[in-house]
Amino acid sequence: MSYLDHLTCPRCTGRYDAGGLHNLCECGSPLLAIYDLERLAANIRPSDLVNRPANMWRYREFLPVTDAENIVSLGEGYTPMLRTARLGRELGLNQLWVKDEGLNPTGTFKARGASAGISRAKELGATTVAMPTAGNAGGAWAAYGACAGIQVHVAMPRDAPTINVMECRLYDAHLMLVDGLISDAGKLIAQGVAEHGWFDASTLKEPYRIEGKKTMGLEIAEFFDWHMPDVVIYPAGGGVGIIGIRKALRELREMDWVSGPLPRMVVVQASGCAPLVRAFDGGLDASEFWQSAQTMAAGLRVPKALGDFLVLQAVRETEGTAVAVSDAEIEDAMRLVSRMDGLAMCPEGAATVAAAKQLRDSGWLQADENVVLINTGTALKYPEVMNSIIAES
Amino acid sequence: MSYLDHLTCPRCTGRYDAGGLHNLCECGSPLLAIYDLERLAANIRPSDLVNRPANMWRYREFLPVTDAENIVSLGEGYTPMLRTARLGRELGLNQLWVKDEGLNPTGTFKARGASAGISRAKELGATTVAMPTAGNAGGAWAAYGACAGIQVHVAMPRDAPTINVMECRLYDAHLMLVDGLISDAGKLIAQGVAEHGWFDASTLKEPYRIEGKKTMGLEIAEFFDWHMPDVVIYPAGGGVGIIGIRKALRELREMDWVSGPLPRMVVVQASGCAPLVRAFDGGLDASEFWQSAQTMAAGLRVPKALGDFLVLQAVRETEGTAVAVSDAEIEDAMRLVSRMDGLAMCPEGAATVAAAKQLRDSGWLQADENVVLINTGTALKYPEVMNSIIAES
Repeated sequence: MSYLDHLTCPRCTGRYDAGGLHNLCECGSPLLAIYDLERLAANIRPSDLVNRPANMWRYREFLPVTDAENIVSLGEGYTPMLRTARLGRELGLNQLWVKDEGLNPTGTFKARGASAGISRAKELGATTVAMPTAGNAGGAWAAYGACAGIQVHVAMPRDAPTINVMECRLYDAHLMLVDGLISDAGKLIAQGVAEHGWFDASTLKEPYRIEGKKTMGLEIAEFFDWHMPDVVIYPAGGGVGIIGIRKALRELREMDWVSGPLPRMVVVQASGCAPLVRAFDGGLDASEFWQSAQTMAAGLRVPKALGDFLVLQAVRETEGTAVAVSDAEIEDAMRLVSRMDGLAMCPEGAATVAAAKQLRDSGWLQADENVVLINTGTALKYPEVMNSIIAES
Repeated sequence: MSYLDHLTCPRCTGRYDAGGLHNLCECGSPLLAIYDLERLAANIRPSDLVNRPANMWRYREFLPVTDAENIVSLGEGYTPMLRTARLGRELGLNQLWVKDEGLNPTGTFKARGASAGISRAKELGATTVAMPTAGNAGGAWAAYGACAGIQVHVAMPRDAPTINVMECRLYDAHLMLVDGLISDAGKLIAQGVAEHGWFDASTLKEPYRIEGKKTMGLEIAEFFDWHMPDVVIYPAGGGVGIIGIRKALRELREMDWVSGPLPRMVVVQASGCAPLVRAFDGGLDASEFWQSAQTMAAGLRVPKALGDFLVLQAVRETEGTAVAVSDAEIEDAMRLVSRMDGLAMCPEGAATVAAAKQLRDSGWLQADENVVLINTGTALKYPEVMNSIIAES
């Protein structure tokens, strides 16, 4: 089933056995899951996937769960790749695609990370998990925790989207509301982990959430018949998605399922909270804590991501770039894409539309390039934002 | 591509050419799309579907669109069938499944009807469509209309869920809010159709919405490897979904893709608006207008369905039944299924859980029967209801 082999540290190259519950490396870096890709490539071919279920577990060999009984699935993944022809014409991009992650359980791509993370936590015997969240991850982990019978502790900003608060309560997670940002929520979780022995499932503090997010990359490659698009544009809060997509495509290339250069990876942030953009522009290897972070795109309100160095690596290695967009540009993009192509993009997803516009206008994107936007969730989870953008139009 | 042959009236057996825009039969009955199933069965086999896209257009031969260029798709259909093991144990049902229609564009099964209806309207040259709605159909048709470049006129009750109002505005549909029910909204639409020549896409007043809903039946059969489950439980407002599922399974049986008796079909309504249940209990062939309809399950607030006689036929022909559940039972079911299996069911979907409980308790459902609940949408579209059920818990 799984070809998971061991865990490794991308910073100090430390190696860990994959058989137990792990958090960070001793050096403080996130750990990454390493698979026996040689054996995987010898035993499985792309054509073996054809008859598999239409969810992310169709890639079970690339995922960390050993016993299928432990898979906690609500039908996540294998989301549509939509050709947004009218928006493409508007922006001057002839091959513009949206991967619509809104069609996931709990309405966002966070379901992928939660499905992989909760499944593996269950397999390894965890009975409680805990994490800070900007909002949507909390809702997703609460749902998968309920399904698995695992108690979930969530800390989130008091001003996170209302629906995320309701989700946690609906799924009977233990919810702590914090006067502050996700970074402050993180401190509260660290305290609970130390005091109560909860398993710390904070972004990148356990190695399997990223494996769930990785399936976006596998799906992109499979959709294009095992070819890579030219560009992937991703809205980065914690940045796990883009780290995961890069990891997936590198694994596939190592197995010769795909070849050639990786797509140029673009990270988009909100101009009110753009630590990765600032670090990219400044030529830094890691970001600095962003003071007074503010944006209505709640998922982008992450002042400092633990995996910042991995995101910056992904962008530089692929000759990508980093772009900041304003809240006003995001709102315009939400209006545009809904009227052009019938899509209710979340603010974070709409940020990729605004970024594509900037990059096409500047000539960084060419008209005939194959460009994939990751819409990380549905606008239905942001009724306040929907209400505001229709009132202004 | 499509094996659509003609349109027929299920009441007076009148026959219509499928090549033009049609509404009701001259006798006042809805029209049904008839396919050349003999030729379809001769040319296509179940195994031909294996490599098809994971959306409802994988069944394109069973759908009314002739030219693939006219398909307006946002990735609708091919939704997960979830084994709800913990809920099943709680209810005493060992093979309980939920078909989760919340993972559709716009968050409900209405996307199927809108995709088929808008696609075919586009193919036949309509430039405006109009309909009354309890809420979610309006949001879905507005989205698909935007994507197709077709103007959509929607009339809905002023007290429909807020998010449906916002959806229509987001997608730039023309929205009319009505002091009353969907039946009153229907009168306003009829007036607009008469005055302005809009194409009337009201429930069952055009023949293709049902074809989109039909794909739920095709998917159920394909999921069970072309076998039928024992029971399908469906929350009926207008009832198009259950009419569609029955139509699909009959078509498949005629083609010998499935065999044996159809699943027993159960329709669930809210006790505050249960015209179909009353008609079933009274042995009537059609329902009577339900006075002062009231339920928080907005989609079930349909006092009289145009296709009532077809729903009653489906239930009786399959030895099914009709069940009314209270709003309190619906709320309890929403709480139960979210905590047991991590699912945020909309009130209408949760009504099927409440019905399954009643029917298991009464012995009408047997412990080992294969039971499919249709969850027609996500609770995320009902933040007011979510808020109320978590406040009470």
